[in-house]
Amino acid sequence: MNGVKPALIALDWGTSSLRGFLMDAAGRVLEQRGSRQGITNLPEPGPAGFEAAFEALCGAWLEQWQELPVVAGGMVGSAQGWREAPYAPCPADARRLAAAAVEVVTRRGVRVLIAPGVLSRPPGAAPDVMRGEEIQIAGALILHPELSVRSLFLMPGTHSKWVEVREGCIIGFRTYMTGELFAVLSRHSLLGRLMTDPAAAPDQAEAGFARGVAMAQEARAGDLAHRIFAARTLGLTGEVPGSALQDFLSGLLIGQEVISALDGAADGARLALIGEEGLCRRYAGVLQALGHAAFLQLGNTAPPGLFHFAVEAGLLAPPQEFPR
Amino acid sequence: MNGVKPALIALDWGTSSLRGFLMDAAGRVLEQRGSRQGITNLPEPGPAGFEAAFEALCGAWLEQWQELPVVAGGMVGSAQGWREAPYAPCPADARRLAAAAVEVVTRRGVRVLIAPGVLSRPPGAAPDVMRGEEIQIAGALILHPELSVRSLFLMPGTHSKWVEVREGCIIGFRTYMTGELFAVLSRHSLLGRLMTDPAAAPDQAEAGFARGVAMAQEARAGDLAHRIFAARTLGLTGEVPGSALQDFLSGLLIGQEVISALDGAADGARLALIGEEGLCRRYAGVLQALGHAAFLQLGNTAPPGLFHFAVEAGLLAPPQEFPR
Repeated sequence: MNGVKPALIALDWGTSSLRGFLMDAAGRVLEQRGSRQGITNLPEPGPAGFEAAFEALCGAWLEQWQELPVVAGGMVGSAQGWREAPYAPCPADARRLAAAAVEVVTRRGVRVLIAPGVLSRPPGAAPDVMRGEEIQIAGALILHPELSVRSLFLMPGTHSKWVEVREGCIIGFRTYMTGELFAVLSRHSLLGRLMTDPAAAPDQAEAGFARGVAMAQEARAGDLAHRIFAARTLGLTGEVPGSALQDFLSGLLIGQEVISALDGAADGARLALIGEEGLCRRYAGVLQALGHAAFLQLGNTAPPGLFHFAVEAGLLAPPQEFPR
Repeated sequence: MNGVKPALIALDWGTSSLRGFLMDAAGRVLEQRGSRQGITNLPEPGPAGFEAAFEALCGAWLEQWQELPVVAGGMVGSAQGWREAPYAPCPADARRLAAAAVEVVTRRGVRVLIAPGVLSRPPGAAPDVMRGEEIQIAGALILHPELSVRSLFLMPGTHSKWVEVREGCIIGFRTYMTGELFAVLSRHSLLGRLMTDPAAAPDQAEAGFARGVAMAQEARAGDLAHRIFAARTLGLTGEVPGSALQDFLSGLLIGQEVISALDGAADGARLALIGEEGLCRRYAGVLQALGHAAFLQLGNTAPPGLFHFAVEAGLLAPPQEFPR
C-alpha cells in the first residue's frame, strides 16, 4: 500500500462476475479483486448469498480498514439483486444516481450503497433500461470531461448500449441484443449447422466478417429475418466456407446495429467506445468501414464511476479538481 | 376404393414428417397416410432408413397395386435425403423440376422419382433456396390457374417463403427465418424470462400481438436487435403483461417480415397464402392490418403438385383439361 490510505471499497457486480476495488481519497485504485460470483452464481440464494460473496471478496479489506464506505453498481441493484434500486429516469448523472440509491447493512454492520439503473422513455417508443453502464458513463465523464458536452457512447456486449450524453447527463439510450442474437442463432438455430471453427482459417473468417458488414449496408426495414438466412445459403452454395460463416453472421449483425444506431444520432457528437477489447476491435472495424474513423476507445471506467457516485452520495469528500 | 383405380403414389417428405397420397389418374386423392418419420427421424440412418419408412407407410399399397409409379418431394431430395436432387435454377415450373429429378430403386424394385428444390440467385444479393414449397406452388397453379400470370405466394412457417410467380414459373423468392427466430428467442434468450402462458389471458395476448404489429410499422433498417428488446422492457415496466409478451414478439417479427416482403413486391400481383391454418390466420391478420385485405387462402396443395410433377416426368398421361 506504500502508506496510502484507502478511502472506499467499490463493487462492480454484474450477472456473471463480481469485481471489487479498493480506492484512495483521490479515486485511484489501490488493489482489486475479482470472483465469478455474479448475481446468478451466488453461494446461496437470497441476501445471505450476496453477503457471503461480498465477504469472500472483500473480507480482508473490511478486517484491515474498518469504517470504509462501500458502494456497488450493476445488476446487484436489480429485482434479482441484493436490494432493488428502482431505475432513475433520464436525464441522469452521478448526482441523480446517488439521490436514488438504496442501502443494505450486513450482519457485521457494513453499509453498502447500491446504485440504481437508468430508464429511458422516448416518446412514442418502447422504454429502455440499463444497469451498470450508467456507472461506466459516469467514470468516462470524469476521465474525459470533453465528452460531457455532447457524446455518443457505444458499449458493445451481449446487449449493446448506445448512450447519448448532453451536458454531463444521460439523456437517452438504445439497447441492441446483437450479442445474444448472434449466440442463440449460432448455437440453437439451423444457421449453426454449416458453421465450422473460424480459427481453422483466420483469413477466410476475416473476409466473411467483411462480407457480412457489406451485406448489412444493403439492409432495409424489417428484413433481418431474411438477411440472416444468407449465413446458410452462402454456405450451401459454397460461396462462403463453413469456417467463415460465423464471422459472416457476426459482421452482418454488428453492421446492422451500427448502421441503425448511427442513423441520425451521431451528428456533432463525440463517439466513445467502452467494452471488452476483442469485441471493441470488431465494432471499431465496422465503424471505420462505415466512415466513422474518429472515436475514443476507453478501458474499464467502472472504478472512477463508482468513486464519482460515492462522492455524490456524500460518502467521500470531492478530491481537488473534481469535476462537478 | 369404389372401383376407382389408383395411378400414383405421391410422397411429401419433409424434415419432421412423411405423408403419402394414393391418387387416381385424374389427380384425386383416394387414400392418404402419415407418419412422424421425417428425414431427421428415420428408423435407421442412410438409404435403408428411407426405404424402411417408405415401406412402413406405403407397403400395403405397393402389395396391392404393383407397378404404381412413385414420386416424392421435399427434404427427401436434399443432401441429407434419400438421394440428392440438386437445386433447379429459376425460372422453374413443374416441367423443369421433372427434368432435374433423380431416381432411387428400392430392394423390391420400386422406382421413386425425387423432385429437386429450387435455387434463386438475385443479382447482387445472397442466393436463396427452397425444397418442398416448389411442389406446393405447382399444385396451387393447377388448382387456381388464374394465379399463373402474376402472383406472390406467402408460405408461413419456421422459414417463411415469399415466392414470385410469372407465367407459371417461379421467378424468385425470399426466405424469412421468422418462425425459428421467434422460437430461439422465446426459448433460449433473456426475452423468454418474463413470458408467461398466453392461454391464461387470450384477450391480452391478442392486444400484445396487435402492439407488436404496430411497432413493426415503425421499424427502420437494421434495428431489429433493438426492437426485440421491447419484449423485455415492456414487461419490466408493466406496460405489457407477461402473458402477452410472447404474442407481442410474434406480432413484431411477423409484422416486420410482411412489411419487408411486400416492399415493392406486391404491385399488381395476386397474393396467395399456403400453410398451417393457425399460422396463416396470424399472417392474414397482419396483412389486413397493413391494408392488404385481398388474398386467396389455400390448403395443402402438395398432392396436386406431386401429381403435376409426375405428369411432367412422363409417369402418367395428362388428364383431360390438365393445364400445360
